[in-house]
Amino acid sequence: MINYPFNITNFKEKTNKKPDSHKNRGLSLEKLINDTNKFYIFNEKALIYKKPTPIHVVKTNKENIITEAYFEKPSTTDYNGLYKGKYLDFEAKETKSKTSFPLNNLNSMQIKHLNKVDEMGGIAFIIVSFTSLNRYFLYFIKDLKNYLKSNKKSIPLNEFIEHGHELEISIYPKLDYLKVIDQLF
Amino acid sequence: MINYPFNITNFKEKTNKKPDSHKNRGLSLEKLINDTNKFYIFNEKALIYKKPTPIHVVKTNKENIITEAYFEKPSTTDYNGLYKGKYLDFEAKETKSKTSFPLNNLNSMQIKHLNKVDEMGGIAFIIVSFTSLNRYFLYFIKDLKNYLKSNKKSIPLNEFIEHGHELEISIYPKLDYLKVIDQLF
Repeated sequence: MINYPFNITNFKEKTNKKPDSHKNRGLSLEKLINDTNKFYIFNEKALIYKKPTPIHVVKTNKENIITEAYFEKPSTTDYNGLYKGKYLDFEAKETKSKTSFPLNNLNSMQIKHLNKVDEMGGIAFIIVSFTSLNRYFLYFIKDLKNYLKSNKKSIPLNEFIEHGHELEISIYPKLDYLKVIDQLF
Repeated sequence: MINYPFNITNFKEKTNKKPDSHKNRGLSLEKLINDTNKFYIFNEKALIYKKPTPIHVVKTNKENIITEAYFEKPSTTDYNGLYKGKYLDFEAKETKSKTSFPLNNLNSMQIKHLNKVDEMGGIAFIIVSFTSLNRYFLYFIKDLKNYLKSNKKSIPLNEFIEHGHELEISIYPKLDYLKVIDQLF
Protein backbone atom coordinates (compact mmCIF):
# COMPACT_ATOMS: atom_id res chain seq x y z
CA MET A 1 0.00 0.00 0.00
CA ILE A 2 1.23 3.45 -0.82
CA ASN A 3 1.68 5.60 2.23
CA TYR A 4 -0.05 8.82 1.32
CA PRO A 5 1.02 11.67 3.54
CA PHE A 6 -2.57 11.90 4.70
CA ASN A 7 -4.78 8.83 4.78
CA ILE A 8 -8.34 10.14 4.75
CA THR A 9 -10.02 6.74 5.32
CA ASN A 10 -8.10 6.07 8.50
CA PHE A 11 -8.65 9.62 9.61
CA LYS A 12 -12.46 9.24 9.29
CA GLU A 13 -12.44 5.98 11.16
CA LYS A 14 -10.38 7.34 14.01
CA THR A 15 -12.07 10.68 14.61
CA ASN A 16 -15.45 12.28 14.38
CA LYS A 17 -13.97 15.59 13.35
CA LYS A 18 -14.25 16.79 9.80
CA PRO A 19 -10.97 16.48 7.94
CA ASP A 20 -9.78 19.96 7.11
CA SER A 21 -6.68 21.70 5.87
CA HIS A 22 -5.41 22.00 9.44
CA LYS A 23 -4.65 18.34 9.85
CA ASN A 24 -1.52 19.10 11.86
CA ARG A 25 -3.59 20.71 14.55
CA GLY A 26 -3.29 18.87 17.80
CA LEU A 27 0.19 17.59 17.07
CA SER A 28 2.51 18.52 19.92
CA LEU A 29 4.96 21.32 19.28
CA GLU A 30 7.81 18.86 19.84
CA LYS A 31 6.46 16.55 17.15
CA LEU A 32 6.00 19.45 14.71
CA ILE A 33 9.56 20.66 15.28
CA ASN A 34 11.13 17.20 15.14
CA ASP A 35 9.35 16.49 11.84
CA THR A 36 10.46 19.87 10.49
CA ASN A 37 14.06 19.19 11.52
CA LYS A 38 13.97 15.80 9.78
CA PHE A 39 12.78 17.58 6.65
CA TYR A 40 15.63 20.12 6.93
CA ILE A 41 18.22 17.36 7.44
CA PHE A 42 16.86 15.26 4.58
CA ASN A 43 16.95 18.27 2.25
CA GLU A 44 20.38 19.33 3.52
CA LYS A 45 19.06 22.71 4.52
CA ALA A 46 20.11 22.57 8.17
CA LEU A 47 21.36 20.19 10.86
CA ILE A 48 19.22 20.80 13.91
CA TYR A 49 18.58 18.17 16.55
CA LYS A 50 16.71 17.89 19.84
CA LYS A 51 19.14 17.20 22.65
CA PRO A 52 18.45 14.10 24.74
CA THR A 53 16.76 14.75 28.10
CA PRO A 54 19.46 14.95 30.78
CA ILE A 55 19.17 11.91 33.04
CA HIS A 56 21.33 11.06 36.03
CA VAL A 57 21.86 7.28 36.06
CA VAL A 58 22.28 5.76 39.54
CA LYS A 59 22.01 2.02 38.98
CA THR A 60 22.30 -0.42 36.10
CA ASN A 61 21.93 -4.19 36.27
CA LYS A 62 24.15 -6.91 34.78
CA GLU A 63 22.54 -6.49 31.35
CA ASN A 64 23.33 -2.75 31.44
CA ILE A 65 19.64 -1.91 31.80
CA ILE A 66 19.09 1.23 33.89
CA THR A 67 17.12 0.40 37.04
CA GLU A 68 17.39 3.70 38.90
CA ALA A 69 17.76 7.14 37.35
CA TYR A 70 16.52 10.69 37.77
CA PHE A 71 15.42 13.41 35.37
CA GLU A 72 17.69 16.44 35.62
CA LYS A 73 16.82 20.09 35.09
CA PRO A 74 18.22 21.13 31.71
CA SER A 75 20.83 23.93 31.90
CA THR A 76 20.67 24.64 28.19
CA THR A 77 17.92 24.44 25.59
CA ASP A 78 16.17 21.59 23.80
CA TYR A 79 17.35 22.34 20.28
CA ASN A 80 20.57 23.47 18.67
CA GLY A 81 22.36 23.09 15.40
CA LEU A 82 23.84 24.43 12.23
CA TYR A 83 22.26 26.65 9.60
CA LYS A 84 24.31 28.25 6.82
CA GLY A 85 27.47 27.79 8.86
CA LYS A 86 25.95 29.63 11.82
CA TYR A 87 25.09 28.32 15.26
CA LEU A 88 21.38 28.30 16.06
CA ASP A 89 19.81 27.59 19.45
CA PHE A 90 16.24 27.62 20.70
CA GLU A 91 13.71 26.43 23.23
CA ALA A 92 10.16 25.36 22.34
CA LYS A 93 7.26 25.77 24.74
CA GLU A 94 3.51 25.25 24.67
CA THR A 95 0.86 27.10 26.61
CA LYS A 96 -2.87 26.38 26.93
CA SER A 97 -3.56 30.02 27.73
CA LYS A 98 -5.39 32.03 25.05
CA THR A 99 -4.06 35.36 26.20
CA SER A 100 -0.46 35.11 27.41
CA PHE A 101 2.65 32.96 27.79
CA PRO A 102 3.64 32.42 31.46
CA LEU A 103 7.36 33.07 31.87
CA ASN A 104 7.79 30.36 34.49
CA ASN A 105 7.66 27.97 31.49
CA LEU A 106 11.28 28.91 30.85
CA ASN A 107 13.87 28.33 33.56
CA SER A 108 16.35 31.10 34.33
CA MET A 109 19.34 29.01 33.20
CA GLN A 110 17.74 28.58 29.78
CA ILE A 111 17.16 32.33 29.43
CA LYS A 112 20.75 33.01 30.53
CA HIS A 113 22.02 30.45 28.02
CA LEU A 114 20.01 31.97 25.14
CA ASN A 115 21.28 35.44 26.05
CA LYS A 116 24.86 34.17 25.92
CA VAL A 117 24.25 32.57 22.52
CA ASP A 118 22.92 35.87 21.24
CA GLU A 119 25.81 37.89 22.70
CA MET A 120 28.35 35.53 21.17
CA GLY A 121 26.95 35.81 17.66
CA GLY A 122 24.63 32.81 17.52
CA ILE A 123 20.97 32.88 16.50
CA ALA A 124 18.81 32.53 19.63
CA PHE A 125 15.05 32.41 19.97
CA ILE A 126 12.07 30.64 21.50
CA ILE A 127 9.16 29.05 19.68
CA VAL A 128 5.87 29.38 21.56
CA SER A 129 2.73 27.43 20.74
CA PHE A 130 -0.64 28.73 21.93
CA THR A 131 -2.25 25.31 21.72
CA SER A 132 -5.84 26.48 22.28
CA LEU A 133 -5.50 28.98 19.44
CA ASN A 134 -3.35 26.85 17.10
CA ARG A 135 -1.00 29.79 16.77
CA TYR A 136 2.80 29.52 16.75
CA PHE A 137 5.39 32.28 17.16
CA LEU A 138 9.11 32.57 16.81
CA TYR A 139 10.34 35.21 19.26
CA PHE A 140 13.96 36.33 19.27
CA ILE A 141 15.86 36.45 22.51
CA LYS A 142 16.66 40.16 21.94
CA ASP A 143 12.92 40.88 22.19
CA LEU A 144 12.53 38.60 25.19
CA LYS A 145 15.41 40.46 26.87
CA ASN A 146 13.67 43.77 26.29
CA TYR A 147 10.40 42.39 27.54
CA LEU A 148 11.95 40.92 30.70
CA LYS A 149 13.00 44.44 31.73
CA SER A 150 9.30 45.15 32.36
CA ASN A 151 9.45 42.57 35.18
CA LYS A 152 6.15 40.98 34.16
CA LYS A 153 5.33 37.33 34.81
CA SER A 154 3.91 36.54 31.41
CA ILE A 155 4.12 37.74 27.81
CA PRO A 156 0.75 38.71 26.34
CA LEU A 157 -0.27 37.30 22.95
CA ASN A 158 -0.16 40.82 21.56
CA GLU A 159 3.54 41.12 22.23
CA PHE A 160 4.12 38.00 20.07
CA ILE A 161 1.85 39.43 17.35
CA GLU A 162 3.70 42.78 17.41
CA HIS A 163 7.33 41.75 17.88
CA GLY A 164 7.34 38.01 17.19
CA HIS A 165 7.04 36.17 13.89
CA GLU A 166 3.96 34.03 13.39
CA LEU A 167 4.68 30.59 11.93
CA GLU A 168 2.29 28.88 9.54
CA ILE A 169 1.57 25.18 9.69
CA SER A 170 1.97 23.41 6.36
CA ILE A 171 2.62 19.92 5.01
CA TYR A 172 6.37 19.93 4.23
CA PRO A 173 7.97 21.17 6.32
CA LYS A 174 5.34 21.29 9.05
CA LEU A 175 6.58 24.42 10.85
CA ASP A 176 9.04 26.27 8.63
CA TYR A 177 10.77 28.39 11.26
CA LEU A 178 13.94 28.85 9.18
CA LYS A 179 11.91 31.05 6.82
CA VAL A 180 12.01 33.73 9.52
CA ILE A 181 15.79 33.37 9.83
CA ASP A 182 16.14 33.66 6.03
CA GLN A 183 14.20 36.93 6.03
CA LEU A 184 16.36 38.46 8.73
CA PHE A 185 19.92 37.21 8.11
CA MET B 1 40.25 27.08 53.39
CA ILE B 2 41.43 28.36 50.05
CA ASN B 3 40.88 25.86 47.28
CA TYR B 4 44.20 25.76 45.51
CA PRO B 5 43.89 24.28 42.05
CA PHE B 6 46.24 21.54 43.19
CA ASN B 7 46.28 20.42 46.79
CA ILE B 8 49.63 18.75 47.26
CA THR B 9 48.92 17.43 50.77
CA ASN B 10 45.83 15.54 49.71
CA PHE B 11 47.60 14.35 46.62
CA LYS B 12 50.41 12.80 48.70
CA GLU B 13 47.99 11.14 51.07
CA LYS B 14 45.93 9.63 48.31
CA THR B 15 48.64 8.35 46.00
CA ASN B 16 52.13 6.98 46.15
CA LYS B 17 53.12 8.64 42.91
CA LYS B 18 55.40 11.63 42.91
CA PRO B 19 53.60 14.85 42.11
CA ASP B 20 54.91 16.22 38.83
CA SER B 21 54.09 18.89 36.31
CA HIS B 22 51.84 16.45 34.46
CA LYS B 23 49.18 16.32 37.12
CA ASN B 24 46.44 16.14 34.54
CA ARG B 25 47.77 12.83 33.31
CA GLY B 26 45.32 10.07 33.94
CA LEU B 27 42.30 12.35 33.83
CA SER B 28 39.79 10.97 31.37
CA LEU B 29 39.49 12.77 28.06
CA GLU B 30 35.87 13.57 28.89
CA LYS B 31 36.93 15.24 32.14
CA LEU B 32 39.65 17.23 30.39
CA ILE B 33 37.25 18.46 27.72
CA ASN B 34 34.44 19.22 30.15
CA ASP B 35 36.82 21.28 32.32
CA THR B 36 38.13 23.06 29.23
CA ASN B 37 34.58 23.87 28.10
CA LYS B 38 33.75 25.26 31.55
CA PHE B 39 36.80 27.50 31.24
CA TYR B 40 35.69 28.67 27.78
CA ILE B 41 32.15 29.37 29.01
CA PHE B 42 33.36 31.20 32.12
CA ASN B 43 35.68 33.36 30.01
CA GLU B 44 32.98 33.91 27.37
CA LYS B 45 35.24 32.47 24.68
CA ALA B 46 32.86 29.77 23.48
CA LEU B 47 29.65 27.94 24.41
CA ILE B 48 30.36 24.26 23.99
CA TYR B 49 28.52 21.55 25.91
CA LYS B 50 28.49 17.80 26.11
CA LYS B 51 25.13 16.46 25.03
CA PRO B 52 23.36 14.20 27.51
CA THR B 53 23.61 10.47 26.80
CA PRO B 54 20.50 9.40 24.89
CA ILE B 55 18.38 7.18 27.12
CA HIS B 56 15.07 5.56 26.27
CA VAL B 57 12.85 5.69 29.36
CA VAL B 58 10.40 2.81 29.68
CA LYS B 59 9.05 3.05 33.23
CA THR B 60 8.86 5.68 35.94
CA ASN B 61 7.29 5.26 39.38
CA LYS B 62 4.88 7.55 41.23
CA GLU B 63 7.72 9.81 42.37
CA ASN B 64 8.84 10.20 38.71
CA ILE B 65 11.98 8.15 39.39
CA ILE B 66 13.03 6.15 36.35
CA THR B 67 12.89 2.42 37.11
CA GLU B 68 13.50 0.99 33.65
CA ALA B 69 15.46 2.60 30.84
CA TYR B 70 17.95 1.73 28.12
CA PHE B 71 21.07 3.41 26.76
CA GLU B 72 20.62 4.33 23.10
CA LYS B 73 23.24 4.49 20.38
CA PRO B 74 24.03 8.16 19.69
CA SER B 75 23.25 9.29 16.15
CA THR B 76 25.22 12.50 16.50
CA THR B 77 28.34 13.47 18.44
CA ASP B 78 29.05 14.14 22.10
CA TYR B 79 29.95 17.82 21.83
CA ASN B 80 28.63 20.78 19.91
CA GLY B 81 28.39 24.50 20.33
CA LEU B 82 29.18 28.01 19.33
CA TYR B 83 32.55 29.63 18.67
CA LYS B 84 32.85 33.10 17.11
CA GLY B 85 29.33 32.80 15.71
CA LYS B 86 30.20 29.53 14.00
CA TYR B 87 28.83 26.06 14.65
CA LEU B 88 31.39 23.59 15.98
CA ASP B 89 30.88 19.85 16.41
CA PHE B 90 33.17 17.05 17.54
CA GLU B 91 33.51 13.60 19.00
CA ALA B 92 36.13 12.66 21.62
CA LYS B 93 37.62 9.18 21.87
CA GLU B 94 40.31 7.44 23.87
CA THR B 95 42.47 4.52 22.85
CA LYS B 96 44.89 2.45 24.92
CA SER B 97 46.84 1.51 21.81
CA LYS B 98 50.30 3.05 21.46
CA THR B 99 50.40 2.75 17.69
CA SER B 100 46.98 3.40 16.14
CA PHE B 101 43.38 4.49 16.67
CA PRO B 102 40.87 1.72 15.83
CA LEU B 103 38.11 3.13 13.63
CA ASN B 104 35.41 0.98 15.20
CA ASN B 105 35.60 3.48 18.08
CA LEU B 106 33.49 5.79 15.94
CA ASN B 107 30.10 4.63 14.71
CA SER B 108 29.17 5.21 11.07
CA MET B 109 26.31 7.57 11.97
CA GLN B 110 28.73 9.80 13.83
CA ILE B 111 31.13 9.93 10.87
CA LYS B 112 28.20 10.69 8.54
CA HIS B 113 27.03 13.43 10.89
CA LEU B 114 30.49 15.05 11.08
CA ASN B 115 30.79 14.94 7.29
CA LYS B 116 27.45 16.73 6.97
CA VAL B 117 28.55 19.39 9.48
CA ASP B 118 31.67 19.97 7.41
CA GLU B 119 29.79 20.10 4.11
CA MET B 120 27.31 22.59 5.53
CA GLY B 121 29.96 25.03 6.72
CA GLY B 122 30.41 23.98 10.33
CA ILE B 123 33.70 23.12 12.03
CA ALA B 124 33.92 19.34 12.45
CA PHE B 125 36.67 17.23 14.00
CA ILE B 126 37.52 14.44 16.40
CA ILE B 127 39.77 14.60 19.44
CA VAL B 128 41.73 11.40 20.04
CA SER B 129 43.57 10.58 23.24
CA PHE B 130 46.32 7.97 23.18
CA THR B 131 46.01 7.30 26.90
CA SER B 132 49.13 5.12 27.20
CA LEU B 133 51.22 7.84 25.57
CA ASN B 134 49.50 10.89 27.14
CA ARG B 135 49.21 12.37 23.67
CA TYR B 136 46.14 14.17 22.36
CA PHE B 137 45.28 15.11 18.79
CA LEU B 138 42.67 17.20 17.07
CA TYR B 139 41.97 15.69 13.65
CA PHE B 140 39.68 17.44 11.18
CA ILE B 141 36.92 15.49 9.49
CA LYS B 142 38.30 16.47 6.06
CA ASP B 143 41.46 14.48 6.90
CA LEU B 144 39.44 11.60 8.32
CA LYS B 145 37.41 11.54 5.09
CA ASN B 146 40.59 11.31 3.03
CA TYR B 147 41.95 8.62 5.29
CA LEU B 148 38.76 6.54 5.15
CA LYS B 149 39.19 6.23 1.38
CA SER B 150 42.16 3.93 2.11
CA ASN B 151 39.65 1.45 3.62
CA LYS B 152 41.86 0.75 6.64
CA LYS B 153 40.53 -0.30 10.00
CA SER B 154 42.63 1.99 12.12
CA ILE B 155 44.51 5.28 11.88
CA PRO B 156 48.20 4.99 12.76
CA LEU B 157 49.70 7.45 15.25
CA ASN B 158 51.88 8.81 12.47
CA GLU B 159 48.85 9.99 10.51
CA PHE B 160 47.81 12.09 13.55
CA ILE B 161 51.36 13.45 13.89
CA GLU B 162 51.49 14.35 10.19
CA HIS B 163 47.98 15.62 9.47
CA GLY B 164 46.49 16.16 12.92
CA HIS B 165 47.18 18.86 15.47
CA GLU B 166 48.76 17.80 18.75
CA LEU B 167 47.15 19.34 21.84
CA GLU B 168 49.17 20.25 24.91
CA ILE B 169 47.92 19.68 28.43
CA SER B 170 48.09 22.74 30.64
CA ILE B 171 46.45 24.15 33.77
CA TYR B 172 43.88 26.64 32.41
CA PRO B 173 42.36 25.59 30.15
CA LYS B 174 43.38 21.94 30.44
CA LEU B 175 43.18 21.04 26.73
CA ASP B 176 43.05 24.20 24.66
CA TYR B 177 41.64 22.75 21.44
CA LEU B 178 40.25 26.11 20.25
CA LYS B 179 43.84 27.29 19.76
CA VAL B 180 43.92 25.02 16.67
CA ILE B 181 40.69 26.53 15.36
CA ASP B 182 42.10 30.04 15.89
CA GLN B 183 45.16 29.22 13.82
CA LEU B 184 43.10 27.91 10.93
CA PHE B 185 39.98 30.12 10.74
